[in-house]
Amino acid sequence: MRNVTKDNITDVFMGYLGEGTDPRLREVMGSLVRHLHAFARETNLTHAEWNMGIQFLERAGEISDKERHEFVLLSDVLGLSSLVDMLHNAPEGTSSSVLGPFHITGSPPLHVGGDLRQDFDAPVLLAEGVVRAPDGSPIPGATLDIWQTAPNGLYSSQDPDQDTYSFHGLQTVGDDGRYAFTTVRPVEYTVPSDGPVGDILRACGRHPWRPSHLHYIVEAEGYKPLVTEVFPEDDPYLDQDTVFGVREDLVMRYETRPAGSFPAEGFALSGKVPEDYLAVTFDLTLVPLG
Amino acid sequence: MRNVTKDNITDVFMGYLGEGTDPRLREVMGSLVRHLHAFARETNLTHAEWNMGIQFLERAGEISDKERHEFVLLSDVLGLSSLVDMLHNAPEGTSSSVLGPFHITGSPPLHVGGDLRQDFDAPVLLAEGVVRAPDGSPIPGATLDIWQTAPNGLYSSQDPDQDTYSFHGLQTVGDDGRYAFTTVRPVEYTVPSDGPVGDILRACGRHPWRPSHLHYIVEAEGYKPLVTEVFPEDDPYLDQDTVFGVREDLVMRYETRPAGSFPAEGFALSGKVPEDYLAVTFDLTLVPLG
Repeated sequence: MRNVTKDNITDVFMGYLGEGTDPRLREVMGSLVRHLHAFARETNLTHAEWNMGIQFLERAGEISDKERHEFVLLSDVLGLSSLVDMLHNAPEGTSSSVLGPFHITGSPPLHVGGDLRQDFDAPVLLAEGVVRAPDGSPIPGATLDIWQTAPNGLYSSQDPDQDTYSFHGLQTVGDDGRYAFTTVRPVEYTVPSDGPVGDILRACGRHPWRPSHLHYIVEAEGYKPLVTEVFPEDDPYLDQDTVFGVREDLVMRYETRPAGSFPAEGFALSGKVPEDYLAVTFDLTLVPLG
Repeated sequence: MRNVTKDNITDVFMGYLGEGTDPRLREVMGSLVRHLHAFARETNLTHAEWNMGIQFLERAGEISDKERHEFVLLSDVLGLSSLVDMLHNAPEGTSSSVLGPFHITGSPPLHVGGDLRQDFDAPVLLAEGVVRAPDGSPIPGATLDIWQTAPNGLYSSQDPDQDTYSFHGLQTVGDDGRYAFTTVRPVEYTVPSDGPVGDILRACGRHPWRPSHLHYIVEAEGYKPLVTEVFPEDDPYLDQDTVFGVREDLVMRYETRPAGSFPAEGFALSGKVPEDYLAVTFDLTLVPLG
């Protein structure tokens, strides 16, 4: 193998793998390197282009920290994150959709009917639904980890003017499987475009917008965790989400309900919403573990 | 396109590219994303594996700095760097080989016959050859940027005990195209394996060794720059260079010459080498531009 050539290098690579290599690692590394080499051959990749790629990765590393995840963003805008979601999506459950780089752990408890709006001056959105098994039965004790943008289009982790857990809450449903909370309508927003991933978007003539959404991680004992998003059907970016997150079953109507119709009880805001408000109902179906 | 699926996402990605996108960028990004998606589909890549990949990239970013280039090292151990070299190698010239992460710019001048050995206590190696065009004629004024490991297996950029330009020199050849210098025999060494790339090597049952070599960048007006390495034919790692850099025409004999035979003039060490010494002759053929 002393004479490595452009035609045998992929085989030489495979030959380097030790006999004791974990079979799955061998499969994944083999596929990765076969495709990486095929990409270089197919494009006749130049040294200058290789160098641009290395500099891109180094810049992505430099801009990354605990709150900025440029490599996740790269995976998102290349469609890899969504593809991995879809590969493991169970057709009998609600579609999963990208986790994205803005989730933070440790959200405070939010009781059923609680309010995330705090002191933001924006119309009320009532979001509710039932967490169900594929047979339609409710799943008592399921948890929803909820996060979304503030009306300024920023997640709390991006915005020094918001508290750490602004527009974040962890809700545990009761025996009826029902979740419910009030918030403001999330808004469409741009993914961070001031780094190397933004440079790629601009060079490719792409915009950085995502359609507005409520983001949930739904978990229950005995079921596969579900990361998903709910999109309003009138969002202008539904058909061109820069991270490829929209699935047909995640698009819902945000209906306007008339003044005076807000539920008289069961909500932190009961008795405090005299005007029109918005409401979205979105049931969530979890799939039992294997 | 609202309903992105695992089967159409690659087409959706291509559809996002703006009409004004540079054609070469479209070609390279298209090929990259097609292969990236095919890799994920083929391996049925899981969220946990995706997450390991993201964490790998973030760790590689964290460990990188001006002197540590973990992404270059990654490209090297996956064979990508060598493949790019080989794709652009002109068969009428000397083979190119990986630049690697240890080259630094600004090496001090080293006159023809100069010495790189400094005060290291190791046998003398005399390296010489002629820089030629493919027709065999010498190329006057060609420059060789030379670098190598010290006897401890470290490049100066890795070793706080060496001067910045220890075992680095920039030689300009005369009308006869001949370069010549004395040094010590470079030694086999390990690529840095204390970072995430080292973890990959270990998980794959691979060692981190490279065969010993002298490393040159050869440049001359009107010719393509050449990055290359000279390997001794008795190196134990010739057949398993962890960065795939060995080419048949770069393997040379380091011959032992008897005491008393060191050239009496023309070298900084003339008259100062009474014992046996090593010598390697390696001619370098550059290919004209365009």
